[in-house]
Amino acid sequence: MVSEPNGPRPTLEAVAALAGVSRATVSRVVNGGAGVRAAVQERVRQAVAELGYVPNSAARSLVTRRTGAVAVVIAEPETRVFSDPFFGRQLRGISRELAAADTQLLLMFVEHRDDYDRIGRYLSAGHVDGALMFSLHRDDPLPAMAERAGLPTVYGGRPDWAGAGRAPRPLYVDTDNRGGARQAVRHLLARGRRRIAVITGPLDQTSAVDRLDGYREALGTEPDPRLIADGGFTAGGGERAMAELLDAAPDLDAVFACSDLMANGALRTLRARGRRVPDDVAVVGYDDLEPAAWADPPLTTVRQDVEEMGRLMARLLLRLLDPRKAPGAEGSPGAEEARGADAAGLAPVITQARLVVRESA
Amino acid sequence: MVSEPNGPRPTLEAVAALAGVSRATVSRVVNGGAGVRAAVQERVRQAVAELGYVPNSAARSLVTRRTGAVAVVIAEPETRVFSDPFFGRQLRGISRELAAADTQLLLMFVEHRDDYDRIGRYLSAGHVDGALMFSLHRDDPLPAMAERAGLPTVYGGRPDWAGAGRAPRPLYVDTDNRGGARQAVRHLLARGRRRIAVITGPLDQTSAVDRLDGYREALGTEPDPRLIADGGFTAGGGERAMAELLDAAPDLDAVFACSDLMANGALRTLRARGRRVPDDVAVVGYDDLEPAAWADPPLTTVRQDVEEMGRLMARLLLRLLDPRKAPGAEGSPGAEEARGADAAGLAPVITQARLVVRESA
Repeated sequence: MVSEPNGPRPTLEAVAALAGVSRATVSRVVNGGAGVRAAVQERVRQAVAELGYVPNSAARSLVTRRTGAVAVVIAEPETRVFSDPFFGRQLRGISRELAAADTQLLLMFVEHRDDYDRIGRYLSAGHVDGALMFSLHRDDPLPAMAERAGLPTVYGGRPDWAGAGRAPRPLYVDTDNRGGARQAVRHLLARGRRRIAVITGPLDQTSAVDRLDGYREALGTEPDPRLIADGGFTAGGGERAMAELLDAAPDLDAVFACSDLMANGALRTLRARGRRVPDDVAVVGYDDLEPAAWADPPLTTVRQDVEEMGRLMARLLLRLLDPRKAPGAEGSPGAEEARGADAAGLAPVITQARLVVRESA
Repeated sequence: MVSEPNGPRPTLEAVAALAGVSRATVSRVVNGGAGVRAAVQERVRQAVAELGYVPNSAARSLVTRRTGAVAVVIAEPETRVFSDPFFGRQLRGISRELAAADTQLLLMFVEHRDDYDRIGRYLSAGHVDGALMFSLHRDDPLPAMAERAGLPTVYGGRPDWAGAGRAPRPLYVDTDNRGGARQAVRHLLARGRRRIAVITGPLDQTSAVDRLDGYREALGTEPDPRLIADGGFTAGGGERAMAELLDAAPDLDAVFACSDLMANGALRTLRARGRRVPDDVAVVGYDDLEPAAWADPPLTTVRQDVEEMGRLMARLLLRLLDPRKAPGAEGSPGAEEARGADAAGLAPVITQARLVVRESA
C-alpha cells in the first residue's frame, strides 16, 4: 500500500512509554518474557495490543538473533537462472523443505561485481539466519563474506576456493559428476563410437571440471584437443560449441554435452548441418530435466535428482541452525547440544547419477 | 561456512563493554555519531575495529529504520515462475533498477496458504524497506498485510481487492491489456476470420479479465460461449483449452490466446489434430517473449514491454521510499518534502501494447 515510508508504524519506544517500562523490558517481554514479573509482562502486552505494535526484527533479533529466514544466493544473473530449468528445480526442493520448517526463503542473484558488496552487507546485517549458495565460480567472494559474518552456510556443488580445504570444512551437497560422465561416455563407447567429442560447462565451476575428468577417465587416453569445446552451460553456447567441433573434427561420431540445454543447442547445429542423430552423430546430455524429454530426438542423458539435491541442502542448513528442529534430523542423543557442523556430525552429501537411455544415443 | 549459529559474531554489547559506554551510545556512533562527543566516538570506533564488529541491522534499523532491501513477492509457486519467461523478464527490469539504486532484491514466492503468514511476518518485521508484488489473484491477503505493516508497496498489474478503490490509491504499473486484445482480434477480423475463439488466463486476475473484455469489444457482439476456454496462462492449459474449443466449435477459424505460452500449447493441439496454421486456423498470442519467436510458425502476437514494466515498478517504489534519491525522479521543488504516494505526485502507470505480425495470423 502507499503508506508513508517513515509513517505511523508504532515503535518499541512508544510501547515502553505507554507501559511505563524501559525499552529493554519491552524487548524481553516481546521475546518471551524471561526475567520479567508477570504483572509487568501484562502491562507491556496491553500496551502492545493497544498500539498494534508489530515486534520489529530490530528489537527481536537483538535478543533472539533469529529471523526465521534463509537466503538462497545463486551466483548467476537472473536471466541465466530463468532460462535453465536446473535452478527452478533445485529451488523447488529447497523451498519445500524450508516451508516445512516454517522458514522464509529469500532468493538473491549475482550479476555484477557491485552486487557482492550489497549482498554481503545484507547477509551480515542479521536479516537472515543462514544461507544456501550455489553455482559459485572459482574465486567467488561469497564464501569468505559468509565466513567473516559467521553466517551458517551450505553450498550446492563442491566449493573450490582458497579456504575450502581448511577446518571447519565447508558443508555442501553435490552429485557424482565424474561418475555420471563416465557412464555417458562408456555408453557411447559400447555403441561403437570412437570419435567422441565433449561440450563442457565453464571450467571455473567444479561440476564442469568433474564431468570433463569423467570423460577423460572413460576414454582411458588423453583426448584429442579438437574434440573439446566450452559451451558455458547455455543452449546458445552448446549450439556454437557444436559448430566449432564439427569444423575442427568433421569425423566425430558422438558428442557428450555436459548439460541438456547444451545438448539441445548441439542438436540444432547438427540438424542445420544435415547430420542425422543418432545415425551420424550420437548425442548424450546431462541433467534429465524437461529439455531432455522435449528434444528431437529425445535425449539419452545422465539423470541427477536436482530437486532432491535442493532438499538435502536445505535439510543440512536447518540441522546446522538447530539440530533438534530440522526435519529428518537423526535422534542421536548428543546431537541436541552439538554446535557447528563438525560437532553435529554433519558432512557433505554426494548423490548418485545414472544414465537414462532414450533415442539420441 | 560451517560456523556456529550462535557463534562468535561480536555483539553491540561487547563493543559497549570494551568502550566503557552504554549500548545506546554504541548504536548512535554506529549510525553516524550525532550527539556523541568526539572523544567518545573515537573510543567506540576503536572498540568496533578491535572486535571486528559488523553493525547489526537490529541495532542499525532501530535508529535509521532502513535496511537497503526490497522484497519482490510473486503470488505464484516457483515452478510456474520458472516456466514462464514473463516473470524472468519482469524481474530483470526490477533487478537492474534496484541495483542502480544499490538496493538489494529479495525474491519470495507464494505456493500454499501457509506461506502468506510467514511472508507477512517477514515483511512486517522490519527486514525490508518496501515491496513489489505481482501476479496477485483476487482476494489475495498480501495487500492487506502490507497495508497493516505500513509497508510501501507497488503492484504489478492493476490490483483488484476490496480495499483497492479506497484512498490512498494503490500504486501499480500495468499495460493496456484491453487495447492490446482489441488489436489482436481486429487483426483477425481484418484477415477475414469470422469464428474467432479466445483462450483466457485465470479470470481472478485483472490482466486476464481485461484481455477478455478487449476481445468482446473488438467483436462488437456477445461472443458464442463455445468459443471461450480458460488456459490458466500455462502451455499445458493452452493445449487443453484448444482441444476443448475444437470439440465444442469445430468450425472455428482463428484463436486469440491471451499469452504466448498458451498460444504455443494451442499450436501443439492444432498440429496434432491436423489443422494448418494459419491456413485453417489463425493464431495470435500475447506478450512477445522468446516462445513467440521460437513457435512454429512464428507467432503473431501483442507486444508488451515486460522488462520496462519491471523497471517502472522499481522506480515508483524507490521514489515512494525516497523522492530525492530515486533514479528518474523529477526535480519538482516540493517533491523533496513530500511523504507518501499522493503527496509525492506518484500515480499508476499504464504502458502501451502493440501488435507484432508474423506468420501465424
